Amino acid sequence: MIKSIRFLLLGLFLWENVSAQKLPTDYVNPFIGTSNYGTTNPGAQVPNGLMNVSPFNVMGSSLNAFDKDARWWSTPYEHSNSYFTGFSHVNLSGVGCPDMGSLLLMPTSGKLEVDYHQYGSTYTQEVAHPGYYSNVLKKYGIKTEVSATTRVGVSKFTFPKGQANILLNLGEGLTNETGATVRYVSDTEIEGSKLLGSFCYTNNQAVYPIFFVMRVNKKPSKRGYWKFQRAGEKWENDWNKDAGKYKIFTDYTDQLSGDDLGAYFSFDVKENESLEVQLAVSFVSVENARKNLDAEQADFSFEKTQKNAASLWNNALSKIQVEGGTEDQKTVFYTALYHAMIHPNILQDVNGEYPAMESRKTLVADHNRYTVFSLWDTYRNVQPLMSLVYPDKQVGMIRSMIDIYKESGWMPKWELYSRESYTMDGDPAVPVIVDAWMKGIRDFDVNTVYEAFLKSATITDSTNKIRPDNADYVKYGYVPLRDSFDNSVSHAIEYYVADWNLAQLAGSLGKTKDAQLFAKRAQGYKHYYSSEYGTFRPILPNGEFLSPFSPLMGANFEPNHGFHEGNAWNYSFAIPFDIPGLVKLMGGKQKFVDRLQATFDKGYFDVTNEPDMLYPHVFSEIKGEEWRTQKLVKEILEKHFTNSPGGIPGNDDTGTMSTWALMNMIGIYPFCPGRPDYTVVTPVFDKVTIQLDKKYYPNGDKVTIRRQKAGAGDYIKKIVIDGKPFDGFKINHQTLVNSKDILIVTGNR
Amino acid sequence: MIKSIRFLLLGLFLWENVSAQKLPTDYVNPFIGTSNYGTTNPGAQVPNGLMNVSPFNVMGSSLNAFDKDARWWSTPYEHSNSYFTGFSHVNLSGVGCPDMGSLLLMPTSGKLEVDYHQYGSTYTQEVAHPGYYSNVLKKYGIKTEVSATTRVGVSKFTFPKGQANILLNLGEGLTNETGATVRYVSDTEIEGSKLLGSFCYTNNQAVYPIFFVMRVNKKPSKRGYWKFQRAGEKWENDWNKDAGKYKIFTDYTDQLSGDDLGAYFSFDVKENESLEVQLAVSFVSVENARKNLDAEQADFSFEKTQKNAASLWNNALSKIQVEGGTEDQKTVFYTALYHAMIHPNILQDVNGEYPAMESRKTLVADHNRYTVFSLWDTYRNVQPLMSLVYPDKQVGMIRSMIDIYKESGWMPKWELYSRESYTMDGDPAVPVIVDAWMKGIRDFDVNTVYEAFLKSATITDSTNKIRPDNADYVKYGYVPLRDSFDNSVSHAIEYYVADWNLAQLAGSLGKTKDAQLFAKRAQGYKHYYSSEYGTFRPILPNGEFLSPFSPLMGANFEPNHGFHEGNAWNYSFAIPFDIPGLVKLMGGKQKFVDRLQATFDKGYFDVTNEPDMLYPHVFSEIKGEEWRTQKLVKEILEKHFTNSPGGIPGNDDTGTMSTWALMNMIGIYPFCPGRPDYTVVTPVFDKVTIQLDKKYYPNGDKVTIRRQKAGAGDYIKKIVIDGKPFDGFKINHQTLVNSKDILIVTGNR
Repeated sequence: MIKSIRFLLLGLFLWENVSAQKLPTDYVNPFIGTSNYGTTNPGAQVPNGLMNVSPFNVMGSSLNAFDKDARWWSTPYEHSNSYFTGFSHVNLSGVGCPDMGSLLLMPTSGKLEVDYHQYGSTYTQEVAHPGYYSNVLKKYGIKTEVSATTRVGVSKFTFPKGQANILLNLGEGLTNETGATVRYVSDTEIEGSKLLGSFCYTNNQAVYPIFFVMRVNKKPSKRGYWKFQRAGEKWENDWNKDAGKYKIFTDYTDQLSGDDLGAYFSFDVKENESLEVQLAVSFVSVENARKNLDAEQADFSFEKTQKNAASLWNNALSKIQVEGGTEDQKTVFYTALYHAMIHPNILQDVNGEYPAMESRKTLVADHNRYTVFSLWDTYRNVQPLMSLVYPDKQVGMIRSMIDIYKESGWMPKWELYSRESYTMDGDPAVPVIVDAWMKGIRDFDVNTVYEAFLKSATITDSTNKIRPDNADYVKYGYVPLRDSFDNSVSHAIEYYVADWNLAQLAGSLGKTKDAQLFAKRAQGYKHYYSSEYGTFRPILPNGEFLSPFSPLMGANFEPNHGFHEGNAWNYSFAIPFDIPGLVKLMGGKQKFVDRLQATFDKGYFDVTNEPDMLYPHVFSEIKGEEWRTQKLVKEILEKHFTNSPGGIPGNDDTGTMSTWALMNMIGIYPFCPGRPDYTVVTPVFDKVTIQLDKKYYPNGDKVTIRRQKAGAGDYIKKIVIDGKPFDGFKINHQTLVNSKDILIVTGNR
Repeated sequence: MIKSIRFLLLGLFLWENVSAQKLPTDYVNPFIGTSNYGTTNPGAQVPNGLMNVSPFNVMGSSLNAFDKDARWWSTPYEHSNSYFTGFSHVNLSGVGCPDMGSLLLMPTSGKLEVDYHQYGSTYTQEVAHPGYYSNVLKKYGIKTEVSATTRVGVSKFTFPKGQANILLNLGEGLTNETGATVRYVSDTEIEGSKLLGSFCYTNNQAVYPIFFVMRVNKKPSKRGYWKFQRAGEKWENDWNKDAGKYKIFTDYTDQLSGDDLGAYFSFDVKENESLEVQLAVSFVSVENARKNLDAEQADFSFEKTQKNAASLWNNALSKIQVEGGTEDQKTVFYTALYHAMIHPNILQDVNGEYPAMESRKTLVADHNRYTVFSLWDTYRNVQPLMSLVYPDKQVGMIRSMIDIYKESGWMPKWELYSRESYTMDGDPAVPVIVDAWMKGIRDFDVNTVYEAFLKSATITDSTNKIRPDNADYVKYGYVPLRDSFDNSVSHAIEYYVADWNLAQLAGSLGKTKDAQLFAKRAQGYKHYYSSEYGTFRPILPNGEFLSPFSPLMGANFEPNHGFHEGNAWNYSFAIPFDIPGLVKLMGGKQKFVDRLQATFDKGYFDVTNEPDMLYPHVFSEIKGEEWRTQKLVKEILEKHFTNSPGGIPGNDDTGTMSTWALMNMIGIYPFCPGRPDYTVVTPVFDKVTIQLDKKYYPNGDKVTIRRQKAGAGDYIKKIVIDGKPFDGFKINHQTLVNSKDILIVTGNR
């Protein structure tokens, strides 16, 4: 009881701090997206840091409605769960497949217990800010606090008097892989590695070891390991009392390996005594993990780490300042911007070393080497956001992609920790880099980029790892359905997007013939159009459409013929580069608009996933119909993006859903990657100030987007740029970055 | 069919080689003791080498009558089994508890199969010589050959044309522990470690990692790992096709850890192509394993290794030359001598480094550091044999024991790889070292020895790890039965033996009061004598004898009150240092002789275990009854020690059973360790020549023991030493080593 009051007071004190002054980080609610399958986590991380320290509450008890072992599950934390079993180190945010979420650090008090079914605890007093998370474990009366530097997670545990235990569980995690090894270097330091990977099971060879070094700041009274011992026959168990149980190793500190094991430290502590734990990782080696730890925590305390993390976030988030709007809108906005900088992550160690793509050869980076590229998602808006607001990051990411090509022979698709998972569809590196190039971000080796793009676009044999069905695609102009439930149409649609982008790059580089070739290939989408249904429709190897066919099949992530994570309705307008062609194909403007409007009216629009996330903005491609975009975006933002754990509709997809919201909230949305413009929509804020990076945008300093209400409605009546009236609803990237002020006047339709 | 003929011819060729010339190694049959629970193995090893490479045929198929997972099992090989699953590296020989028997190297051909239930094979054409073993795998037509240097196992596999696979299984083994880690260093080299230990489960903390480096002599076409993936829920298995199965890693070569995993190399080979594999170990580190490999296989081929091993064995075995006797007797003899030099093993690496006792601190040896001390067994005869024939080894072993004391604070009891298992009873380091001392082997630090012995003899609190019941023992002069089925009487009997030995040492060092004290304590055995039963009998804490009581309880390794691995009959004459006292206790010579004779006549004598192995020789302590010893020894040798897989009665106990046979076969048996003499029995050979080490026995060079038949019987009629008649049947050690010729004249009784 006394413990509860103590921490209640502490909680209030923290809350008062928060209310004292409003910084961008004060408008970040890391719990947004932690329910409703948003799969974000409230863990501590610095912007694009390798380390993320998240509370882990998805195993060990029926108190958790969502259990990683009882259903498909992909995130270390679910807001409605309540049984906590530690902090996982290095986590994926907003993804739909399980991986990472390991190195589970748990404080307990009293007698040592190493079975997570037993040692877990419910919790209260959850507090999360960028770079900080805290709770109070009800079972133990332990206050936990975590923070992070780029490569090191730091934890502070405040214990009641008695025996305090710190456990590092190496047996569990979200990852599909098991197997770890650990060794005591001294009484206060352990080192080891654990296998991770097989993300989405799409490439079961794409595994990677994570190396770690962990230190505690006090010499323990006892330390050792535990390991689950395989069960023997009954006669054997009579002798071996450890069989089929967790064996506690009290007197052995050399290397221990296995599937289900961990290390523990026990201490005698005074009431309210705090212990600190530092856990550094590397994807190269244990030695590098130690270098990371020494470098990033040389003279750091928990408080310093926490302040440093908050400061890094404030600097990053301050690149966009918003005024007006509600507190909740500001919170949704800054949390979305925060989510846009969780991934990709810095991979290289403090000495610059990183594991080369696919080979695991150790190389030294001469720029930030990023990892975790969910490009099928992020090409749509996260990477364009980076080009506009964080061009230095964008260049680092593009250079990393180029290096990945140089190292492995292929651009990344869904890369994690220098392994390619081949998850999702298409050739998404193309729109990522072409979009940046077309926006003037050109500080990279475009010749190598072009070589890489030509390779994946033209190789038609089985060595083409990016476009596995390129032979069909090149031969027919489409990908026929060769297997039930294959993703042929989805693949082809992404190839069209990539080829259209490649045509833009070729044109920009003066490669006219290539530009013509790829522009022509991009038109192949028309093969799929079924006038009978008014949608795209899979084509059989004999050239005929799939029959029977239902364009509604595949909703809600059901398996579907030809379409990946969606149905025909979710893909049939997904040709951003040629809406005029699509309009013509679908029977002219009125039929097109009616059919697109019907997807919304009839509930065929899936707000939770990427393929149709551009649908509301398609209307803005048609003169006179832009109001529909403005109306739909406002409705979707209000309904689906809220300041609550369920405030992201479905997987955040490494920031893609969040970026959809945040760019629409500031009034500009990158409708067609590779086309250097933005669709203007109604901002939710009175004034948005974007700080531009002078290195990339020498004519700009900052640009404001102001909204002026000329009536009750939220429709755009007029756009004025630097005092001059602006025609249309698409603003060119160069216009934007060379402007000082964009005034958007709104009112009734 | 063709394959079979090919290997049949090869087999004949080898057999011809064997028959060409008779060296001591030609009289070693490594299959002796590989059935009938002898638990020796026919694997390749050099004398006292760390490395032993044994065929492993105790898992994976119901073809094996003896399966390590279906019953208590302690040896990698059983002669009557037939399903082979590889070669285990580093094995225990003749022990009764499972440990080691891991690093299972298996060649296969055709498609890669990693489940040992599938990849195992029956075999034929078994050939084994010291330092060499070979068979032909019937499933694959692969000829396997293995040999060893001190720290490296080498294998040569001759394959049929096609795909050849070499597997290193790190998941299985005899050891109770699991957990290994492995990493490809290059296409042809892997390194890693595996946990071993918990021998006999007596000390579940006594675990140790074995480190290894393995090389193949050809670049594989493919290489990778396998690992058993934990089974998931059904929904999970639908996605993850590897769940609950062995996953093959084809494209990952960095560190892999887990419970059940292995590494494979695949090759395209021509018909009859041989591949060689070298596997080095270290108990210090992977780096040291590599140093061992580089040093011992720098310019070695398989043939060189095999010849070197044979040469080392011939040198060692030639220290005793026998003439006369049958071929089988010579084989039993030399195989026994071979078994006497399987353990203890050299522990230090080529750079001298070894893991310090209990701490695993790395130290550097300035003499051979031995490990695997089964002292409760070996103090009885193996160590006395070493003192006589291999004093340099004996000194190395004693110095190792002293270092173990210095490092851990205690002398060894049943030590393995620098961990104390606390298996079996007593304080057996005392008789080992005192016996050597009393025989003039004094090239060690006796002051430290005495300090160590005093410590275990006098500390009466729970810190006394060697004599856990020393408080009772010191207080009462015996150990009362405090728990059902405890080993109190067995403990005490060993303490009496140790204390009597300690008294001898104290006397020799002029410590008269200590000598008196320990001599008196040694007399405590009399407490246990029950005149009612004529045997020893457990005493309850209240000082009364246990009732009800049956001296037959505990036969055949049944659990028993007070007695360990035996019953009252097996222990009641086991006071070698005071047979006169025992005679008096038991009512005088006739009663004593009758009762002892009855143990044999009624079948109470257990030939398979240590406590009563001295019984036949007890008769030689009584003037006029020596003929009984001669008769019994002859009968036991003929019945139980034969040139056959079942030719050792029960566990060889790291050479102890073998040494019982071999010393009796040459005519001298060390009846009472600590008393520097030998009981003379009838030699089975016409002439035995023992080469004496001039460093320790400057007056000797070699001594012959000749048997001259003066009649049909096998009773000793007369003993003549260097031409002079010798009185009695006990020959002093100094007399022996200073003699040239001992003539034993035999005839009828």
